[in-house]
Amino acid sequence: MHEPPHGSAPHATTAPGPLTAAGTTEWVLTVSCPDGPGIVAAVTGALAARGDNITESQQFGDPASGLFFMRVQVETTATREELVTALTPAFDSFGMTWELDVVGRRVRTLVLVSRAAHCLVDLLYRERSQGMPIDVVGVVGNHEDLRDIAEFYGKPFHHVPVTKDTKAAAEARLRELVDELDVELVVLARYMQILSDELCRDLAGKVINIHHSFLPSFKGARPYAQAHDRGVKLIGATSHYVTGDLDEGPIIEQDVERVDHSRAVADLVSIGEDVERRTLARAVRWHAEHRVLLDGHRTVVFR
Amino acid sequence: MHEPPHGSAPHATTAPGPLTAAGTTEWVLTVSCPDGPGIVAAVTGALAARGDNITESQQFGDPASGLFFMRVQVETTATREELVTALTPAFDSFGMTWELDVVGRRVRTLVLVSRAAHCLVDLLYRERSQGMPIDVVGVVGNHEDLRDIAEFYGKPFHHVPVTKDTKAAAEARLRELVDELDVELVVLARYMQILSDELCRDLAGKVINIHHSFLPSFKGARPYAQAHDRGVKLIGATSHYVTGDLDEGPIIEQDVERVDHSRAVADLVSIGEDVERRTLARAVRWHAEHRVLLDGHRTVVFR
Amino acid sequence: MHEPPHGSAPHATTAPGPLTAAGTTEWVLTVSCPDGPGIVAAVTGALAARGDNITESQQFGDPASGLFFMRVQVETTATREELVTALTPAFDSFGMTWELDVVGRRVRTLVLVSRAAHCLVDLLYRERSQGMPIDVVGVVGNHEDLRDIAEFYGKPFHHVPVTKDTKAAAEARLRELVDELDVELVVLARYMQILSDELCRDLAGKVINIHHSFLPSFKGARPYAQAHDRGVKLIGATSHYVTGDLDEGPIIEQDVERVDHSRAVADLVSIGEDVERRTLARAVRWHAEHRVLLDGHRTVVFR
Amino acid sequence: MHEPPHGSAPHATTAPGPLTAAGTTEWVLTVSCPDGPGIVAAVTGALAARGDNITESQQFGDPASGLFFMRVQVETTATREELVTALTPAFDSFGMTWELDVVGRRVRTLVLVSRAAHCLVDLLYRERSQGMPIDVVGVVGNHEDLRDIAEFYGKPFHHVPVTKDTKAAAEARLRELVDELDVELVVLARYMQILSDELCRDLAGKVINIHHSFLPSFKGARPYAQAHDRGVKLIGATSHYVTGDLDEGPIIEQDVERVDHSRAVADLVSIGEDVERRTLARAVRWHAEHRVLLDGHRTVVFR
Repeated sequence: MHEPPHGSAPHATTAPGPLTAAGTTEWVLTVSCPDGPGIVAAVTGALAARGDNITESQQFGDPASGLFFMRVQVETTATREELVTALTPAFDSFGMTWELDVVGRRVRTLVLVSRAAHCLVDLLYRERSQGMPIDVVGVVGNHEDLRDIAEFYGKPFHHVPVTKDTKAAAEARLRELVDELDVELVVLARYMQILSDELCRDLAGKVINIHHSFLPSFKGARPYAQAHDRGVKLIGATSHYVTGDLDEGPIIEQDVERVDHSRAVADLVSIGEDVERRTLARAVRWHAEHRVLLDGHRTVVFR
Repeated sequence: MHEPPHGSAPHATTAPGPLTAAGTTEWVLTVSCPDGPGIVAAVTGALAARGDNITESQQFGDPASGLFFMRVQVETTATREELVTALTPAFDSFGMTWELDVVGRRVRTLVLVSRAAHCLVDLLYRERSQGMPIDVVGVVGNHEDLRDIAEFYGKPFHHVPVTKDTKAAAEARLRELVDELDVELVVLARYMQILSDELCRDLAGKVINIHHSFLPSFKGARPYAQAHDRGVKLIGATSHYVTGDLDEGPIIEQDVERVDHSRAVADLVSIGEDVERRTLARAVRWHAEHRVLLDGHRTVVFR
Repeated sequence: MHEPPHGSAPHATTAPGPLTAAGTTEWVLTVSCPDGPGIVAAVTGALAARGDNITESQQFGDPASGLFFMRVQVETTATREELVTALTPAFDSFGMTWELDVVGRRVRTLVLVSRAAHCLVDLLYRERSQGMPIDVVGVVGNHEDLRDIAEFYGKPFHHVPVTKDTKAAAEARLRELVDELDVELVVLARYMQILSDELCRDLAGKVINIHHSFLPSFKGARPYAQAHDRGVKLIGATSHYVTGDLDEGPIIEQDVERVDHSRAVADLVSIGEDVERRTLARAVRWHAEHRVLLDGHRTVVFR
Repeated sequence: MHEPPHGSAPHATTAPGPLTAAGTTEWVLTVSCPDGPGIVAAVTGALAARGDNITESQQFGDPASGLFFMRVQVETTATREELVTALTPAFDSFGMTWELDVVGRRVRTLVLVSRAAHCLVDLLYRERSQGMPIDVVGVVGNHEDLRDIAEFYGKPFHHVPVTKDTKAAAEARLRELVDELDVELVVLARYMQILSDELCRDLAGKVINIHHSFLPSFKGARPYAQAHDRGVKLIGATSHYVTGDLDEGPIIEQDVERVDHSRAVADLVSIGEDVERRTLARAVRWHAEHRVLLDGHRTVVFR
């Protein structure tokens, strides 16, 4: 797994991000810490003392958890080191957890698929044409079906079949790929295999799944069949971080589409594809733009 | 309970409905029967033989249940008796369950409330100003809070308090009111008491509830607190027929509203009011317009 | 231009459509005629007399235009000829305009593009994976940019550049392609050229465009810049039949997405892509499924 | 017209707002000024120096206008005077336009109506039951129709009829009421009269209208008839500040509802009522919560 941007920042030097005014770079800083007076002032004061310009800023204090969350975009001539130095007093005095990255740096992403193409096609299209800040460094399929799509977009396709007997070996291969490819984010794009608890734990906060129902309705298998049987009038999709607790991870985004009595299960599957791909795309984009922060088993999303 | 329009039709003679062309009345016919060839032709042929004009017509055959559903609006100079006579061969040869009513006849409705006003205010407003075809013949509250609103709209308010000890007596009083007031439809407009299994059974298909979640998510008590805890990104409401199986009755309508991490439980309650009242209003309107047909534990809604 | 299914039906014999029960085919019939009593009975009676089974049926009488519209899907062992024979008395006695096609037959479609990929990618994906009943027989671009996408999906790409001087020649080439490829539907998938009045007239009802605004707001050029300047809170897209009257053709479908003050024009363009592609996809699907009927300068859409 | 909260603050002393921690009050500060480095730090630094706790904060820099906007909620033991003193250096050095008010203080509001009840009913209900921070100090009708609703909610109803001859006198009466009742906000709740240019100018930024179309589509009279004729698939509503330029004022909020070909103009009017009332309610709430700032002819809405 790639060393996270927090602490050292190889990406920042190799991929300098959007140049704005002459010689300046735009950075995104996310912090969380116990809530209390003076946090915003400490962070923005440190930046103002340097003469840096804040272009976007959002905060949230959660009364339930007692935690404070903040996301700041700042235009500066400073190096990463200089920024960290300027901010360290604030980081230290409030006990902040923080991340600092260059705005628009493309997050190294591994996409896992099975046979359904819609989410993969959508993500690759958005990377190529819509400026989604991800760099899909590989596609893993437990079937061969989507090799041609991956390769059309110039992405290496790795066939890692999974059977009951090969599950452990398959997961070991996944771990190898994550390491070799310096992967920062794993996207389960309708990947129909369940990751082991251990892998979920090791990649906590770095794996995003799309579940084809409006969670917590219709957990588990065949959610559209469940939805049809219950006679719901809207079907939905949920994108969430993966934890060992199946379909229970922190929700990043949800959306729905209206259906009526005339729709068979196969229609729900087809209609659902559109909801799934746009819900997953939003979640991946927001994660890659450092807009999603964890607040216990909930998320803060600074859209 | 009011004698349903099926069989005899006192309403048809006392409330002759919208007069359209000189001397004609517009009727709504709903039928269901086992699916097969010739159903639409039999019904529409009988009407065409009389020279009557179909103004609206919808059908649905459910492959799962093998049942066929149809709703027809027809403009005619015929009396109810003449219409039934013309249609009886079709009714008989296909084993149809049917209802025949005058379009726009206001359905005699009893609204049950507790303390929350939003659904009651909305229904009474829609009856008075928006042409919703209901005639609210009384409001029952287990608290006194909403008496003034009911009375402003000229509706008798019945205070029927419910405690553990008086529950049976309260329900007996409800039954009396349903009988005395010739009630055709009971609406639970955020009524915070659970009806007994027996009452649910006796009023099957005639009681509509609004549940303040997107069912089947968050059944039972305090759904907004559950939704907040789970960190969902959309909250919803579900209007359904009441059965003995709590929050499991056939769904008529659902809707949702977007929320984010910054919303406390109290905000969800407030935002939810808007979703609840519009979801309930649609369900009640469609029921009163004979647009909702039961297909097992699912509904067919001809919107 | 391909001979329309109305009159003779080469497609019916070459592409026999979904076989259902042994030896039966499912057909879709659309009719329009002046409104009056007996239309539904005449059509459904003719089918019932043959013992054919209606699986889907919708009607609409427009009080404004005095026209009646109907769409019927019917399962039958009849040939096209036998069906037409059975229905001809109804067609004749009500002066019906009608079309008869096999359900699911893929409509021969030519897609015109410029540089923006999102609509083309989406249509080709939906043809390949989502069962949209179109057969894209060619892609025309006035730029070369999208050749690779077309060819990945196995579609011949025709580069037909357009300048002020070559406009007439380019349009002649378009007409040739429409003829040679037996094209039934032309889709302008963000094609940034305006067709001549004459071509619009010749292909009336057979050309679908996607306009990147919520018409009639922001007609003409740069609608997202106009929308940004006006400070709207929702942006939209409109799919419509093309007429000589720019951006004024009959609307098939519209949709919107919420935006806020923080969005620059470039953001609106990017957000708009999602609205455009789903709006266009619905319009093309409904057209290809014979769900869209013209009612003067408005459309009837039997969804 | 009531003296705006900016400058002096009678409301702050008479209506002390939500008490939070012992002896503290929550204030809302809005500022706008030319964009540049150090603005957030200056404001939050001044509050942090006092030990005050920021509970909500949003910023936006508009590259188009070069202006910066900020909204801060802060919990403090300070008086208004002490707060202003602490912030004055920031106000002065950045040339800020600012307002300071107590969170939740109810804004003195005059509602103008004609015959349609839906918006008035909704606003009065939300004031009474939903905590919308307005104090409706009077209702003005150019017809008597809505007197009973106003009086049910305990609101004085002023009948100010308007004819061509009495228009000037009617407007003079409006101005009197605005003065006498110390009105801060005027809401045109489907008021079917046009205010004079002069009155619009004098009350600039203090009058909110609901227009029954998705502006800029269908300006002027009978927008639903226009929408029906154009065959749109979504109808909408727009809430905006009133300026002398009819239907051209800065947009605060917009929403839409799906319709189809089967809807007559009267149906659009009825469906539109729901869109209108919720669009207007959001605009009024956001204004009353000081979430709407003017950015030229556009608005910044900190939701």
